[in-house]
Amino acid sequence: MNQPVFRCSVCGRESAPDAHAYCCSCGGAFELAFEPPAFDLGGIDHSEWSLFRYRRFLPLPDNSWRDVTMGEGMTPAVRLDGDTWVKVDYAMPTLSFKDRGAALVIALCKSLGVRRVIQDSSGNAGNSIAAYAARAGMECEIFVPKGTSPGKIDMIRSYGAHVEVFDGTRDETAEACRAKARAGEAAYASHVFNPFFYQGTKTYVYELYEQLGALPDNLFVPVGNGTLYLGVHLALDELEKAGLLPRRPTVWAVQSERCGPILRAFTQGSDAPADVRPVPTMAEGIAIGKPVRGAQILRLMRTHGDRAAVIPEADILPARKALAGRGFFVEHTTAATYAAYLACRKAGLVQGTSVLPLCGAGLKSQGK
Amino acid sequence: MNQPVFRCSVCGRESAPDAHAYCCSCGGAFELAFEPPAFDLGGIDHSEWSLFRYRRFLPLPDNSWRDVTMGEGMTPAVRLDGDTWVKVDYAMPTLSFKDRGAALVIALCKSLGVRRVIQDSSGNAGNSIAAYAARAGMECEIFVPKGTSPGKIDMIRSYGAHVEVFDGTRDETAEACRAKARAGEAAYASHVFNPFFYQGTKTYVYELYEQLGALPDNLFVPVGNGTLYLGVHLALDELEKAGLLPRRPTVWAVQSERCGPILRAFTQGSDAPADVRPVPTMAEGIAIGKPVRGAQILRLMRTHGDRAAVIPEADILPARKALAGRGFFVEHTTAATYAAYLACRKAGLVQGTSVLPLCGAGLKSQGK
Repeated sequence: MNQPVFRCSVCGRESAPDAHAYCCSCGGAFELAFEPPAFDLGGIDHSEWSLFRYRRFLPLPDNSWRDVTMGEGMTPAVRLDGDTWVKVDYAMPTLSFKDRGAALVIALCKSLGVRRVIQDSSGNAGNSIAAYAARAGMECEIFVPKGTSPGKIDMIRSYGAHVEVFDGTRDETAEACRAKARAGEAAYASHVFNPFFYQGTKTYVYELYEQLGALPDNLFVPVGNGTLYLGVHLALDELEKAGLLPRRPTVWAVQSERCGPILRAFTQGSDAPADVRPVPTMAEGIAIGKPVRGAQILRLMRTHGDRAAVIPEADILPARKALAGRGFFVEHTTAATYAAYLACRKAGLVQGTSVLPLCGAGLKSQGK
Repeated sequence: MNQPVFRCSVCGRESAPDAHAYCCSCGGAFELAFEPPAFDLGGIDHSEWSLFRYRRFLPLPDNSWRDVTMGEGMTPAVRLDGDTWVKVDYAMPTLSFKDRGAALVIALCKSLGVRRVIQDSSGNAGNSIAAYAARAGMECEIFVPKGTSPGKIDMIRSYGAHVEVFDGTRDETAEACRAKARAGEAAYASHVFNPFFYQGTKTYVYELYEQLGALPDNLFVPVGNGTLYLGVHLALDELEKAGLLPRRPTVWAVQSERCGPILRAFTQGSDAPADVRPVPTMAEGIAIGKPVRGAQILRLMRTHGDRAAVIPEADILPARKALAGRGFFVEHTTAATYAAYLACRKAGLVQGTSVLPLCGAGLKSQGK
């Protein structure tokens, strides 16, 4: 077993993972001090058909994951056309890639003896946490702001979770949830604060490496809070360190033209996410005005020479139609990533092979 | 490559697979005269993350499947509790197990040079055929009876398929579709008539064998037209013949108490499906009053000592809630299978381990 340690990204203080202390006492977000063995195809448990086939490289304190897994991961990578590949990451228990992270976070909670989790997302992350909490036999409460669509609330409730409809903005709702966590009433199973989430999403890259035998030249990654993005770089670091990457793929950070605090800061040379006034976008899954780990994302982008890819709002619906016309019916945020990719390709910016994640199934955002 | 031959299940006449002749000139449904090599774990292509990893045992005339696959198959098998396992067969490109069969049928059409397919299902099969036709670059038309919900029609249209809303009953709609096929206007990509469909669904059992290392004592299988059921017995025949089954699992054929033409005939000792007047049921995915291959299903049930499992209508919603409470949000027809299983278990009829398929994702039948 691999014993992980939480380390504050601001003051550097280390502590044992604690489901109730979701951030450092200084307010900084935790990173994980965890050094897995050098990645190696021989270390994969091929008999396990879930992302826990990579458990040798995951920070699992014990076997709690066995009571938590629903078979998430091992999603197909399919050539769409020419140099373009998609990874069908909605082929998951709750129909979105968030299951990768939720499985790790809830496995941690399980090993810590947590009985009750809370979370503040009415989207894919909230659904995923609600499902995995149910699977693990934990009580779950999801905070959503007033005005959240009844369909989304129903979906969360279907897993037996309690939905707390909070009379306030999205940010105020999150704060109410965190206050409850600080009061010790429940563990905050946050896809943003809990560094285990990224240990789950890093398997996205492990899988590409295993199934394609090599990584593509380009990885397009939608960025809201960066839950997939941070996992991608974690895995790239590990594979590079293990000497498995002749060349590190170029990561393209994808944000909406209507809500792009990271890309704007990146372009302006700023270290912190830009202040943006988000305009409603169909790419709502990544419409995060104030990403908690924005500065960390910007550092990574600069360190590794990432590129920026902007989603033209008007291209989202045509991109969604184009993907469905190739057999893949996806949610709007996923179509938006494809739209950004097509725009970059049209501008002649993309060289070589590219992989795009199909993060969410189409029915998830139907009726919009 | 494995060259398959169509053989009429009534008159025995053999012919080459023809996408336009969907049944024998005598009216009988085709079976496939196809003898794969003895099944063997060593024959699996482990580098292929789709059901085509088993292509050595599939009747593929050429490599057309490479232009068709969307990574279907390789779904998780997860212990629900105690002796009960579920296979998460909705973790698929179109969110239902039908992708297994559609991939094979459209791969056959592709290798035959088909450019246009038609089908008559507004449910999971229609969706799946529409998606795979899109993937393969074929035109697709789906016939649905007047009164089909707009949501279902939208879903099919999303793949670029044309939806023909026919002013008639479900049966009349199917007949209109078949008339068009007989006129040679398009290939009838039928999940019922085309025997390739069952070559796809048989991989459900291959996977269980590969991922669990053995088969369970019981396989619960919902039966409407028998698309999964027939594939299950095909695979069991192959595994048995290969000497891999110390004991053939008991197959439980699951039908609704409101529409059970097979189970009623089975109980009454009849060779042909009983005449039933279907009453609306939430298990609509298997509410087939006149299953084309009903007699064949009854023969198999008697030959192999299958058991009958009846879905109590009143137990469907509680079963759906119970599954979601364990993390799996499924469509009503899938919940119905679980309800039948629970009823059999409660009655003390089930011994040993059981696997249930989670055939369709919950969002597929939401808002019912």
